[in-house]
Amino acid sequence: MTLTERLDYYRKLTEAALEKALSSPNERYYPSIFKAVRYSAMSGGKRLRPALIMEFCRMCGGTPEQAAPFAAALEMVHTYSLIHDDLPCMDDDDLRRGKPTNHKVFGEATAVLAGDALLNRAFETILDPQNTKGLPAETVLRAAERLAKASGMDGMIGGQILDMESEGRQISQETLMLLQRLKTGCLIQVAAVMGCIVAGRSDPETLGAAERYADHLGLAFQIEDDLLDIEGDITKFGKPIGSDVENSKVTFPSLLGAARCHELVRELTDHAIAALQSFPDHAFLDDLENYLVTRDY
Amino acid sequence: MTLTERLDYYRKLTEAALEKALSSPNERYYPSIFKAVRYSAMSGGKRLRPALIMEFCRMCGGTPEQAAPFAAALEMVHTYSLIHDDLPCMDDDDLRRGKPTNHKVFGEATAVLAGDALLNRAFETILDPQNTKGLPAETVLRAAERLAKASGMDGMIGGQILDMESEGRQISQETLMLLQRLKTGCLIQVAAVMGCIVAGRSDPETLGAAERYADHLGLAFQIEDDLLDIEGDITKFGKPIGSDVENSKVTFPSLLGAARCHELVRELTDHAIAALQSFPDHAFLDDLENYLVTRDY
Repeated sequence: MTLTERLDYYRKLTEAALEKALSSPNERYYPSIFKAVRYSAMSGGKRLRPALIMEFCRMCGGTPEQAAPFAAALEMVHTYSLIHDDLPCMDDDDLRRGKPTNHKVFGEATAVLAGDALLNRAFETILDPQNTKGLPAETVLRAAERLAKASGMDGMIGGQILDMESEGRQISQETLMLLQRLKTGCLIQVAAVMGCIVAGRSDPETLGAAERYADHLGLAFQIEDDLLDIEGDITKFGKPIGSDVENSKVTFPSLLGAARCHELVRELTDHAIAALQSFPDHAFLDDLENYLVTRDY
Repeated sequence: MTLTERLDYYRKLTEAALEKALSSPNERYYPSIFKAVRYSAMSGGKRLRPALIMEFCRMCGGTPEQAAPFAAALEMVHTYSLIHDDLPCMDDDDLRRGKPTNHKVFGEATAVLAGDALLNRAFETILDPQNTKGLPAETVLRAAERLAKASGMDGMIGGQILDMESEGRQISQETLMLLQRLKTGCLIQVAAVMGCIVAGRSDPETLGAAERYADHLGLAFQIEDDLLDIEGDITKFGKPIGSDVENSKVTFPSLLGAARCHELVRELTDHAIAALQSFPDHAFLDDLENYLVTRDY
């Protein structure tokens, strides 16, 4: 399979798991919340985190199918965070992936609940034994625990608070690193880690290598994102250019300059690929890494 | 122990578990979110759901201490739902338990994140093996699954959406029943059920009796709440009287009249107490039931 074929395969598995997770017999009593969660969860996106879980699971001897409920859960956590981030009281964004944001379509109250529902559904999905047949309870528990930690106050939500409090203020490179590691890095890292755990590989060496890979990838991806915000094209990127500047956010380019950022992305990419050497058959992730940091899609 | 002594003991166990769950070494980097979650989670409240988990756990042969992390988790879910419910885009309430609501003190953005953080922390707490030492992975998984289902789109969040969509509209008694069963009943029911599961009693008879008890209790409690809203006293109740009328919500008294509601509370109480007969040593819950429906505290 080529890189894009495999990405496509993983995307389809993830979206099937999402469709299943977001349906319910209760939909006939109160359809609006189901419409609202589907609107955001099924609105495309790269499904990068799902691809990472599935590929790490495959590399560690499992199957992408085993990882599918975890991939869907992670995507639900990611989606809920975007819905709440876009709210008027947060970033107040009207567009996401080129479409009106959730609260623009369904109203603020439903958007708050849709976010809550997606976060909750992430745990419902992986804790439902129907979805994780054949996996030991201990394995499910460890993967769920990692997901919970990565998305909480000591992970993604911590990053969101730091981000909010940094707005309009000058912050150091160290604070920006911590902020990004928490806000976006934790979910990328837990994707790689959950993939290993689901495949039955929970030894510290394996999880450590997966964490190192994902940490470098996450930072490279974030710096690339900042670069796209100042250099990108709205038709490719789906949101207005320069919104970070407008929101007076400190970014890697504003701290280090664009040229150093391009260099840094290359260095981080090399480190990420180096961390993969202990995994067998890592060609797909090497390619993915290069593909992501030369984004033109 | 008298009723109030035991309630007090359970409350203290729960609050110690909450304090532990809501602390983190990251607090020094971004203290505001921790302050915000503690403000709402530690603001008193009856801790009724925790008392139910702990008492069912004790009746089924476990200890209240084993149930403490689950009690804390349930209280976090309950608290997050109140924080989000009070938001300007939802019920727009300024007071909760006689104190300014979370968003009034910390701002809307932090209140949204504080709610998210509490929901997430609920799962972090019960999925952390440090907190559930001695319990089989299968037991933790089943209790966590029930909590996730009870709080999600097919439980509490479904009730919140139904509630929102019913505002200003005439709804039937059936819809109001469904709404209340989902919005408040599910969390009360899962308290009783998790208590049994944590104690190692997951047979359908035990869980069924616990569910019946909690279903009757939950409805009785809700009807009593509606009655207090029109008949109560702000100093006792901590929120302005008649807010349901003001928000043009259909309530049990508005559908059935106050006299029938008082009768119904008595009938439901009798049914609840009848459902307890299969449990040994249920005197505490009999007393609790009577105490709750003659609320004057």
